[in-house]
Amino acid sequence: MEKKPIVAILMGSKSDLSLMRPACEILEAFEVEYELRVLSAHRTPERTSDFATKARKRGIQVVICAAGGAAHLAGVVAGLTTLPVIGVPLARTPLAGQDALLATVQMPTGIPVATVAVDGAANAAILAAQILGLNNPAVEKMVENMRAANLAKVIADDEELNGGS
Amino acid sequence: MEKKPIVAILMGSKSDLSLMRPACEILEAFEVEYELRVLSAHRTPERTSDFATKARKRGIQVVICAAGGAAHLAGVVAGLTTLPVIGVPLARTPLAGQDALLATVQMPTGIPVATVAVDGAANAAILAAQILGLNNPAVEKMVENMRAANLAKVIADDEELNGGS
Amino acid sequence: MEKKPIVAILMGSKSDLSLMRPACEILEAFEVEYELRVLSAHRTPERTSDFATKARKRGIQVVICAAGGAAHLAGVVAGLTTLPVIGVPLARTPLAGQDALLATVQMPTGIPVATVAVDGAANAAILAAQILGLNNPAVEKMVENMRAANLAKVIADDEELNGGS
Amino acid sequence: MEKKPIVAILMGSKSDLSLMRPACEILEAFEVEYELRVLSAHRTPERTSDFATKARKRGIQVVICAAGGAAHLAGVVAGLTTLPVIGVPLARTPLAGQDALLATVQMPTGIPVATVAVDGAANAAILAAQILGLNNPAVEKMVENMRAANLAKVIADDEELNGGS
Amino acid sequence: MEKKPIVAILMGSKSDLSLMRPACEILEAFEVEYELRVLSAHRTPERTSDFATKARKRGIQVVICAAGGAAHLAGVVAGLTTLPVIGVPLARTPLAGQDALLATVQMPTGIPVATVAVDGAANAAILAAQILGLNNPAVEKMVENMRAANLAKVIADDEELNGGS
Amino acid sequence: MEKKPIVAILMGSKSDLSLMRPACEILEAFEVEYELRVLSAHRTPERTSDFATKARKRGIQVVICAAGGAAHLAGVVAGLTTLPVIGVPLARTPLAGQDALLATVQMPTGIPVATVAVDGAANAAILAAQILGLNNPAVEKMVENMRAANLAKVIADDEELNGGS
Amino acid sequence: MEKKPIVAILMGSKSDLSLMRPACEILEAFEVEYELRVLSAHRTPERTSDFATKARKRGIQVVICAAGGAAHLAGVVAGLTTLPVIGVPLARTPLAGQDALLATVQMPTGIPVATVAVDGAANAAILAAQILGLNNPAVEKMVENMRAANLAKVIADDEELNGGS
Amino acid sequence: MEKKPIVAILMGSKSDLSLMRPACEILEAFEVEYELRVLSAHRTPERTSDFATKARKRGIQVVICAAGGAAHLAGVVAGLTTLPVIGVPLARTPLAGQDALLATVQMPTGIPVATVAVDGAANAAILAAQILGLNNPAVEKMVENMRAANLAKVIADDEELNGGS
Repeated sequence: MEKKPIVAILMGSKSDLSLMRPACEILEAFEVEYELRVLSAHRTPERTSDFATKARKRGIQVVICAAGGAAHLAGVVAGLTTLPVIGVPLARTPLAGQDALLATVQMPTGIPVATVAVDGAANAAILAAQILGLNNPAVEKMVENMRAANLAKVIADDEELNGGS
Repeated sequence: MEKKPIVAILMGSKSDLSLMRPACEILEAFEVEYELRVLSAHRTPERTSDFATKARKRGIQVVICAAGGAAHLAGVVAGLTTLPVIGVPLARTPLAGQDALLATVQMPTGIPVATVAVDGAANAAILAAQILGLNNPAVEKMVENMRAANLAKVIADDEELNGGS
Repeated sequence: MEKKPIVAILMGSKSDLSLMRPACEILEAFEVEYELRVLSAHRTPERTSDFATKARKRGIQVVICAAGGAAHLAGVVAGLTTLPVIGVPLARTPLAGQDALLATVQMPTGIPVATVAVDGAANAAILAAQILGLNNPAVEKMVENMRAANLAKVIADDEELNGGS
Repeated sequence: MEKKPIVAILMGSKSDLSLMRPACEILEAFEVEYELRVLSAHRTPERTSDFATKARKRGIQVVICAAGGAAHLAGVVAGLTTLPVIGVPLARTPLAGQDALLATVQMPTGIPVATVAVDGAANAAILAAQILGLNNPAVEKMVENMRAANLAKVIADDEELNGGS
Repeated sequence: MEKKPIVAILMGSKSDLSLMRPACEILEAFEVEYELRVLSAHRTPERTSDFATKARKRGIQVVICAAGGAAHLAGVVAGLTTLPVIGVPLARTPLAGQDALLATVQMPTGIPVATVAVDGAANAAILAAQILGLNNPAVEKMVENMRAANLAKVIADDEELNGGS
Repeated sequence: MEKKPIVAILMGSKSDLSLMRPACEILEAFEVEYELRVLSAHRTPERTSDFATKARKRGIQVVICAAGGAAHLAGVVAGLTTLPVIGVPLARTPLAGQDALLATVQMPTGIPVATVAVDGAANAAILAAQILGLNNPAVEKMVENMRAANLAKVIADDEELNGGS
Repeated sequence: MEKKPIVAILMGSKSDLSLMRPACEILEAFEVEYELRVLSAHRTPERTSDFATKARKRGIQVVICAAGGAAHLAGVVAGLTTLPVIGVPLARTPLAGQDALLATVQMPTGIPVATVAVDGAANAAILAAQILGLNNPAVEKMVENMRAANLAKVIADDEELNGGS
Repeated sequence: MEKKPIVAILMGSKSDLSLMRPACEILEAFEVEYELRVLSAHRTPERTSDFATKARKRGIQVVICAAGGAAHLAGVVAGLTTLPVIGVPLARTPLAGQDALLATVQMPTGIPVATVAVDGAANAAILAAQILGLNNPAVEKMVENMRAANLAKVIADDEELNGGS
């Protein structure tokens, strides 16, 4: 990777990788450079802090944080940077993501986390691209193309089902 | 207002205004031009659609949407623009915001809404500022100053409580 | 299909089709003409809007909308027509339909959605038939026959289990 | 009241009346004749059964049933008539309507209840009017007028807030 | 069955039978005569009403009612008899029994349902036996024996695990 | 009180008394002798155990246990007696009785608790009377009279509301 | 305060103080030295980290952390010390503490937080005393005395209510 | 086992053993002597009481209690000893551990249970070790080593994923 990453995808454990793959695929499709990190708010607090405090200087513009259970990763990172932080609550406990959703979204005043749906990795990447797209016409175009493709697919499905009616 | 707004705050009903005041105050403190709209996904669908499809062209960079109950406003707007859309679920029914939270955050793949806490108007504005700050050093500085002020306040409270310990 | 449809079944994604099959089967059994559409409140907002605003003129009398997650389809359609709109919340996320239920039923004053059970496709079709039956004795008769058949089946089951007691 | 009622509003207890007033006001505004009944699925099962089995013959076209807690009224009535039954879950216990919502909406296959929001009396009346409007242009016109008035109000609120922006 | 049943087990659908088997087995082990009925509050309201109003005269002393979703069976039966009615909420929808639990337990003042755990068929039978045991020493003895057997089993398990400690 | 109590009402704290008054009033109206105890599963485990193991011998036939939060009182008593135990979950924490409901009703196989609604003291007393009524015609008559009075009241309310319609 | 604190009570905001007073009062009654800190996982991450990494060396033996919403304080502190950390979820949002409970208790493997009830400040202090009591007979005695006093109070209440029965 | 156990792991049923294995493995790895007991708050109340009242004298310092459903074991034990009691809510019913969590954590003032995550057996053992570690440097070292190993593993995973970035 010669180009510098502008998005960072953080996950609390390597076992979250399969759930986060869709985010990677979308960023790749959008030709957005990203880095993938395993950083735990609880197990590697210093590395997490180090990442968060240096991210902006390193050129990162959006941070995506995925975690399950008492998901603290997004909140902890958000407290250490003024970059936009996107939280992906993962359904990894018997409580089916309800825990991760509340632990991610209910942040106190002053430190927002932009939360997407439970297991919503793809949308985290798209949201990142929409943010980047404000000042990056190429990325913005990619988002629009994806929208157009989705539109076309729904129309095709509609026509297939709806026949000649 | 001579300067053009770059943030739009949409609410489903004028009665949401008191809950959204903190967002206005923060954007004013940050010297971010914004507009305040009453637009309902259900009662004024065409005006909402009109707003959403023209927002980018008009110079809007971030849209904040607040709604309670089956909160569809953020999702509907998000489907009509590639601007980042921030959703604020409001606790306006006996279900205490649980309905608005799920109706805002659980968006399908392709159309993310950056969801903040229930009744989290202030954080919606701060998140908007963090997004704008990626390309607007003045706004980014404002966010940092607010962080520093919050930090100072917590430290002062800590020292007051903790005395000479 | 020469006869014109009087019920429309909308789903947010073609992948919802298997969950909605029971609605189709019931309408077919009741000899109610229907059309099946894939229309997304978020991915194809204009087509959805187009459908909703023209549905009454085209002879549609009841619209059934099925969606999962932050299920907005029924609400968006309901905002664009005064036809009765029936919402079917689908259990398609880790939150098991709780999200879709609240996002469908908790509509604001002015725009009701007649909500049925999570994954309740069959009941959506029966409710549509009951509404149509107010002015269509043949359909009303079909509903009564189904009721009678259900009654007979429960009685048969009861007698099988209860034996000669 | 010389004209015969075409909508019946049932509530489980007279104490539900204040919560159901909005339904009455809307039907009156729409010039829809209705009757108001206190009928309990549990305390007056026979009267409830008597009402439900005779409603259609008496000219009732839509039944609205409101109840809190383990809200069975709508379901019981729905089992005894093929008229469309609209359920209004009321927030009358410490569980804040979550109980009434699930007890109303999660009906078994064969017996749908068209459920509206918790404490959603107004929407129950509007839904009833939308159903009646399929064959009653005057009522349909009333619904459209209400929609137009709501639209105008939201626009007025929007313009008031949005000023000359 | 020559002896007359003193317990009735009602279920809303024959498909509930496998979940209710444990209740049957316990009553058989306790030598309590019971009858098994398929009666639906919604699909066979008259048969259900007929059962409930005649149960006491027929010698039934306790009624066990099992249902899922918007579980109304126990409540409806309880409204029609002053016999103790035990409700078994079944986990038969995507909401995992939360709907059936609330629809069974949250009964209005005047008409209690003695609710046991979700899918708690065995406990419904034991509770019935405890009620019968107030005036039937043989059944009471059976309950005590079962308790003693459970005690012995837990002790055996404890000693197996705990070894000589 | 010369007559010996046949129902015991247990509460975890004297502060629960106001919530349990309706149970007392109903038992008094039904002329059922009862005793009122403050016994805590956690704070007075031995007294609770002493009560439970001796209750049957002392002539108690039904035990009503009320508790909030992690409501263990009913379950603990139920483990120590084969008398029927009725649990009343109280809404005494910010979780509004959801905690007490689950902690009371979800008992393991072998030890049922007959659970009534959150804050359902009155229904606990009525259920106790229904159980006693199996062998006490006077009490059974009292329950029937109460039902008849409730019926009459609902009919009176119905006629008042429904007037000459 | 000459003696060195052995318990630290941390709260995310000075406004939590009133909810945490019961913890202070209990530790004072138990003659356990404590310190009171306002430290926010998000607003003062460095001070929080500094506190947590030095707490053991400074003689702190148990840390109590109170926070509402997406309550991260206990988890963040727990990741930075091997001292036992007790979490107190506070009911400070419209979600009534359900958010704070899940965000506190659902910690990932490796980093436990000893969670007490929502708004359970008093129990956090008692739990701290029980932990300290393992090696501090004076504190252990205090806990036993409190238990005895609670026992006496329940007995007094019981005798007052139960009279001469 | 010649050494005397200082931790006791209690479970309500032998079938909980597989869920509690991780606690055993951690204590073994930490060289902490423990005993494993099957004790039911409801099925073996006396043995449970006997265990709890004698545990401290026998040298037990921390008690871990695991139970599902209306999980009373931890609370009952906590009421009978002033040793720290750790509760592990198990997901063993259709309600997925939500019942066990609330029944374990929402203890009344005076009797805390240190609750860990649903199915959080490993963390219960680690918390026990952290408590023991206050006065046992060897155990405290073990916890620190585990932390260091977890840290190393996350770093290795991070480096594997992150490549040379």
